Amino acid sequence: MGEPEHLHLTYNDVHKNIERTAARIAAEFKPDLFIAIGGGFFPARVMRTFLKDSITKRNIPIYAIGLSLYEELPGTTAEQIGSQVIRTQWLGPESGKTLLGRRVLIVDEVDDSRKTLHYAVSELQADVERELAKLPEAERDAARTKFAVFVVHNKLKPKLGSLPDDVPYYAGENTEDLWLDYPWEASNIDEHDALAAEEKASGKHADTVKSA
Amino acid sequence: MGEPEHLHLTYNDVHKNIERTAARIAAEFKPDLFIAIGGGFFPARVMRTFLKDSITKRNIPIYAIGLSLYEELPGTTAEQIGSQVIRTQWLGPESGKTLLGRRVLIVDEVDDSRKTLHYAVSELQADVERELAKLPEAERDAARTKFAVFVVHNKLKPKLGSLPDDVPYYAGENTEDLWLDYPWEASNIDEHDALAAEEKASGKHADTVKSA
Repeated sequence: MGEPEHLHLTYNDVHKNIERTAARIAAEFKPDLFIAIGGGFFPARVMRTFLKDSITKRNIPIYAIGLSLYEELPGTTAEQIGSQVIRTQWLGPESGKTLLGRRVLIVDEVDDSRKTLHYAVSELQADVERELAKLPEAERDAARTKFAVFVVHNKLKPKLGSLPDDVPYYAGENTEDLWLDYPWEASNIDEHDALAAEEKASGKHADTVKSA
Repeated sequence: MGEPEHLHLTYNDVHKNIERTAARIAAEFKPDLFIAIGGGFFPARVMRTFLKDSITKRNIPIYAIGLSLYEELPGTTAEQIGSQVIRTQWLGPESGKTLLGRRVLIVDEVDDSRKTLHYAVSELQADVERELAKLPEAERDAARTKFAVFVVHNKLKPKLGSLPDDVPYYAGENTEDLWLDYPWEASNIDEHDALAAEEKASGKHADTVKSA
């Protein structure tokens, strides 16, 4: 094996990825709240630009949660996945109230192992369930939160976490399991853009990135 | 008066603005924690790229707070400024503990009236003071949090909020009081970039934006 394969993405690549996916999300899921996981804040901010007119004419609020993955340990089972994620920030003590009855789009930049998304969805769902339990049973169904997930890139590889079947999943693009170089990580943005242009000219970009 | 003057900024304009300012902040303030106010999350993410190597070799954590400005009311005095800002998200119940002893860079995209920054600094400072009060008096000075502020753009105009003298203030660029069109708000990013290029060619960009 040589060097890990890199793929460089420009800001405008990411912006247009989000624009295309926003059209599908506006037609199908129609979120009224974004929850950004760490690096998902920027994609959520761009998504809001494309979603605000089509749904409420108002800005969709963006909340942030902070999650970090512990290093993966050998022999980890699906049951232990949750324990590998630590919260650095959450929605606050009123989390369940904030979420109740909303259509929540959870946003992250990349879906690698799916562990962080698995954790986020199950914990947010648990916050909702605790809040629903305070309501009379007849009111619960109407107040139940709808969740969906959006990631800019989904790496096509075996996943260690999973999402419930009733949570729609939107990936801007599917990619092979390579190293994605995002522009906000570029210490020299002109060089980064030149590499991205080379990869497009050589066909590498088209070979490794597929529309989702 | 005609249309409000617009200035279009590309993603790479913003990225390089942050890169330049990061060099000053690394030399002078050396933050070990970022607090992003809403739209400040993206600038904080880019800033982290340029600061991580020079200080700790580790990623600097980014926390997010959400603040919204109420519509400005006529006859508002300085004392009332705080009441015009509402929190949509805060650091959580452990805010003071999170901040204690840290060098905190508060990040926002634009400093318009300075009201949001005024509110953020005074409320975070109050969280710290409550936490300091739990410590023996002799330990308080060493544990006191240092705050600084970074904004991508500072509009040169009369400000309605103010910052304490001991809080360093970094603006990537100072601009005239015009309408700043950020790329993440662009519904057509190619058109946006073309307008930005025109404004640079015509000298408008150089006339209205000054290095800080």
